[in-house]
Amino acid sequence: MQRTHHCGQLTESHIGQTVTLNGWVQTRRDLGGVLFIDLRDRSGIVQVVFNPDYSGEALQIADKVRSEYVLEVTGTVVKRDAETVNRNLPTGEIEVRITGIEVLNAAKTPPFFIEDGVEVDEALRLKYRYLDLRRPEMQKTLLLRSKASKIFRDFLDSEGFIDIETPILTKSSPEGARDYLVPSRVHEGEFFGLPQSPQLYKQLLMVGGIERYYQIARCFRDEDLRADRQPEFTQVDIETSFLSQDELLGMMEKLMQRVFKETIGAEISLPFQRLTYAEAMGKYGSDKPDLRFGLELIEMNDIVATSGVKVFASVIEKGGEVKCLNAKGCGTWTRKEIDDLGPFAARYGAKGLAWIQVKDGEFKGPIVKFFSEEEIAAVRERTGAEEGDLLLFSADTKKVVADVLGALRVRIGRQLGLIDDNVFKFAWVTEFPLLGYDEDQKRYVAEHHPFTRPMDEDLHLFDTDPGAIRAQAYDIVLNGYEVGGGSQRIYKREVQEKMFDALGFTPEVAYDKFGYLLDAFEYGTPPHGGIAFGLDRLIMLLAGRTNLRETIAFPKTASATDLLMDAPSQVDNSQLEQLHIKLALKPKKEKDKE
Amino acid sequence: MQRTHHCGQLTESHIGQTVTLNGWVQTRRDLGGVLFIDLRDRSGIVQVVFNPDYSGEALQIADKVRSEYVLEVTGTVVKRDAETVNRNLPTGEIEVRITGIEVLNAAKTPPFFIEDGVEVDEALRLKYRYLDLRRPEMQKTLLLRSKASKIFRDFLDSEGFIDIETPILTKSSPEGARDYLVPSRVHEGEFFGLPQSPQLYKQLLMVGGIERYYQIARCFRDEDLRADRQPEFTQVDIETSFLSQDELLGMMEKLMQRVFKETIGAEISLPFQRLTYAEAMGKYGSDKPDLRFGLELIEMNDIVATSGVKVFASVIEKGGEVKCLNAKGCGTWTRKEIDDLGPFAARYGAKGLAWIQVKDGEFKGPIVKFFSEEEIAAVRERTGAEEGDLLLFSADTKKVVADVLGALRVRIGRQLGLIDDNVFKFAWVTEFPLLGYDEDQKRYVAEHHPFTRPMDEDLHLFDTDPGAIRAQAYDIVLNGYEVGGGSQRIYKREVQEKMFDALGFTPEVAYDKFGYLLDAFEYGTPPHGGIAFGLDRLIMLLAGRTNLRETIAFPKTASATDLLMDAPSQVDNSQLEQLHIKLALKPKKEKDKE
Repeated sequence: MQRTHHCGQLTESHIGQTVTLNGWVQTRRDLGGVLFIDLRDRSGIVQVVFNPDYSGEALQIADKVRSEYVLEVTGTVVKRDAETVNRNLPTGEIEVRITGIEVLNAAKTPPFFIEDGVEVDEALRLKYRYLDLRRPEMQKTLLLRSKASKIFRDFLDSEGFIDIETPILTKSSPEGARDYLVPSRVHEGEFFGLPQSPQLYKQLLMVGGIERYYQIARCFRDEDLRADRQPEFTQVDIETSFLSQDELLGMMEKLMQRVFKETIGAEISLPFQRLTYAEAMGKYGSDKPDLRFGLELIEMNDIVATSGVKVFASVIEKGGEVKCLNAKGCGTWTRKEIDDLGPFAARYGAKGLAWIQVKDGEFKGPIVKFFSEEEIAAVRERTGAEEGDLLLFSADTKKVVADVLGALRVRIGRQLGLIDDNVFKFAWVTEFPLLGYDEDQKRYVAEHHPFTRPMDEDLHLFDTDPGAIRAQAYDIVLNGYEVGGGSQRIYKREVQEKMFDALGFTPEVAYDKFGYLLDAFEYGTPPHGGIAFGLDRLIMLLAGRTNLRETIAFPKTASATDLLMDAPSQVDNSQLEQLHIKLALKPKKEKDKE
Repeated sequence: MQRTHHCGQLTESHIGQTVTLNGWVQTRRDLGGVLFIDLRDRSGIVQVVFNPDYSGEALQIADKVRSEYVLEVTGTVVKRDAETVNRNLPTGEIEVRITGIEVLNAAKTPPFFIEDGVEVDEALRLKYRYLDLRRPEMQKTLLLRSKASKIFRDFLDSEGFIDIETPILTKSSPEGARDYLVPSRVHEGEFFGLPQSPQLYKQLLMVGGIERYYQIARCFRDEDLRADRQPEFTQVDIETSFLSQDELLGMMEKLMQRVFKETIGAEISLPFQRLTYAEAMGKYGSDKPDLRFGLELIEMNDIVATSGVKVFASVIEKGGEVKCLNAKGCGTWTRKEIDDLGPFAARYGAKGLAWIQVKDGEFKGPIVKFFSEEEIAAVRERTGAEEGDLLLFSADTKKVVADVLGALRVRIGRQLGLIDDNVFKFAWVTEFPLLGYDEDQKRYVAEHHPFTRPMDEDLHLFDTDPGAIRAQAYDIVLNGYEVGGGSQRIYKREVQEKMFDALGFTPEVAYDKFGYLLDAFEYGTPPHGGIAFGLDRLIMLLAGRTNLRETIAFPKTASATDLLMDAPSQVDNSQLEQLHIKLALKPKKEKDKE
């Protein structure tokens, strides 16, 4: 027999037809000698019925099957009796009366139920991923991912982009403390590095006249893992020549619009909001603000600098700042509810959290007594504080104030129901700082990467104030997540050399590390720039999930382990010998082995 | 200014329009103060003209540009004078009178000319790959590759396949002497392996109910390299559940037909020829026969076993065989021409090469005198030998005879002009042996891989003659190349255990190596099978190239080196320390370092 239909496909239009189905036993119920099996394949579920009246020998065989057996069944599609119609099932109007069956494979009882919404320990799900993948929700997510990738490709293809594969066995990047290394068998004592991104290759493709490149590229980063990081991850990697930043961003907006429309039917309106980094940090305390709601951070320095609140005055004197959030309607919170915010704020570096309630028309709270009448009026005007509001103040360095109030803003926004989970609010954040000062290394480091082009009007700052240089860099943010980022790149050797100099590389070191790039810049490099989207995170948001692992067929755990195959694992010494390396374990373990 | 058109796009329909172009200077000619520049971008070349009459300052600027400078120019499209029309250029009817220019970047003189057909040392091309990629031929090949990948995806997508990414950091396979290893920072003393293929993951996806999977997957093999091997390569990886071998093969034929039609316009007729492995080896001496021409191997054992040619008789007695090729029309070759085949045949293991010429109606040659009249008549009938033919005999083990005559067949076919390079002749080779005996290891090894399903009718041979078991495996061959291969897979635990047993694994070892797979087979594994196409080789054939490196943007050399980035390379000891390994160089080098 040969499969004629898929389970979830069958409708009333198939009534009377003989069909052959393949699938897994979802459930099996015996009602007075009549056997009902819900048969499941990738397309869905259909009820097949074994009845002594028409199933003959098939009933005896079916009687022995259990959950997750793999079957081939043949029978006739019939309409169900009115009282047995199942409105919860797309195929619920019909059932299949079985006349032939073959058990293709048996199954032991699975360690967990193959259905959505069941609470299963994630480690168990990952160990038996091949069973977990049978759950409709996982299949739906993987299908969504496949579809989204296809839409990316279709769009980019139609815009003249060439899909080019770049090497995975490449050079360990000089700044690459976080590179995975691969020892070479042929070249004794040498190593390949796995790419953190195809950055340099895609720039060299632009030097090579490719003009528009894309790749859905695997990237690798051996860093300390968090819930939302994987040692290998996928990015939609894009690079263009001769396009202005505005042209590129406009094209990418259309791309996002199409991906969201064609996967989940969401309408994204264009153009996206654009904020500079300074605006984003100032108003939202974050470079990836959730713009589905307001609740903006309010500057207070000018009002409170001379107030009697000592901590405010002293912070401002030291170059810090005071900002406030107006949590509308939270003026009725109990003292305990307000105090509960303290430990939360502390996690983001707050040493304390000052507050004012507006109650009975008056400002109330421990700090109110230190304000003059005029100051209270100014605060009221600036914050728009009204009856029932709660003002929350953070006073600290700029960074801590942004972190604390940025986090409080999201927490309170969520608490007040200001965030609509059905809204997708994109924005571009631009003009990121080019360099940040690393206190440990006592030198500037690239905020994005060393190939990011400075803004033309800031080029002169290399000599006077490198930290103030803004970059032609941009992130695309969605609902508080960064889903992509990129920049226009340096394409002149002299600018690249200035950049390396700012990073503290001598010309010799710079050439040793990146000579091929500096050389390439001298052979006719076009102006170019690009972007990369984090595919895993984008799929997570499209699928409405909160965990990257749900979007990946075979993810690794937070400790970079593949629980299914048990990787990484020990290997034979003979293999290591061929690779010209040996283990250098910490003393204790070494001893254990001896 | 903003680019309005691409160079190669401009035709007479643009006459009168003001256009802005970006591109590279291909050539620059000064004719009496008028400057002609061929400007090149990805789309092609157009002539732009700087004339004192209309170019003003732009002429002064243009006067300084040289080959490979990057320009932005603005001007008006005009028809060329009749006598200056260039019929060799798609844009040759027009030129652009330039009124504005910006030099976007300068260029040193490149180390080789940026044009096709120039003889350049490949090492130089690879070191300056970013210049090599500017050559039209390279761009055409990369575009073809991008297009072919897209067609694969479009076809598979339309057939309900899901594109799923499988891990690149995975477990070193137990049979994997040729795995690239990646030391783990988090898990001291443990290693990931890079996949030689996604084989086990795709089978687990079938256990997971995905039913139809594909991926254009990067694979890795640390083996001794040959001209046509790369340490990382790309395969179009496919797996299906519930499809018979015939259904799968039929679907793949349609896929190939579409790829060839939509990339290079080649018409491939269906269905493909199918040969068993035994037939292919018997008739063509190869499991990837070039079927564009006949010149089949002819069996001679029955005729010559009792002849006076001692070497024939003795070979047959020892279980070997005698076969012959009829090289039509080569009977006029000189003795030297025939003798020249000797060293060639020797490369394939021949100890000698017997021959008979048909001249003046008679058989001539050293061995003729050992044949009886009847034997000569029988040879004449069997081989169809006619006036002017040359019969070439190989007598040895089956393997050597196949290798020698298989290679001679191709050489002579090429020499006789029997091979039409514009023909694409696909075939399936089926029923490969499941196991081969490894004399070194004194055990059977899997010819394909240990997960290949034996033919049902041969299952009983596990106990008596494992070497005779045929596999449900198939290769897709094209013009003498294997472009893909696959198999139906084992899906029952007891068959997989028999297979492991045949490979000499104890049950404990088998479970230690592949326990997760054996376990998976017990939870309802569907019948499944798949195939993988070698994308690099397929593109090579589509592009009419003879070197895999031409199809890859950044290939490695035959010694697995990236000449552009200089990888692999030495790394800091601190990096190795973090990975819990140290170098174990051969003594001499170690001493040098101390």
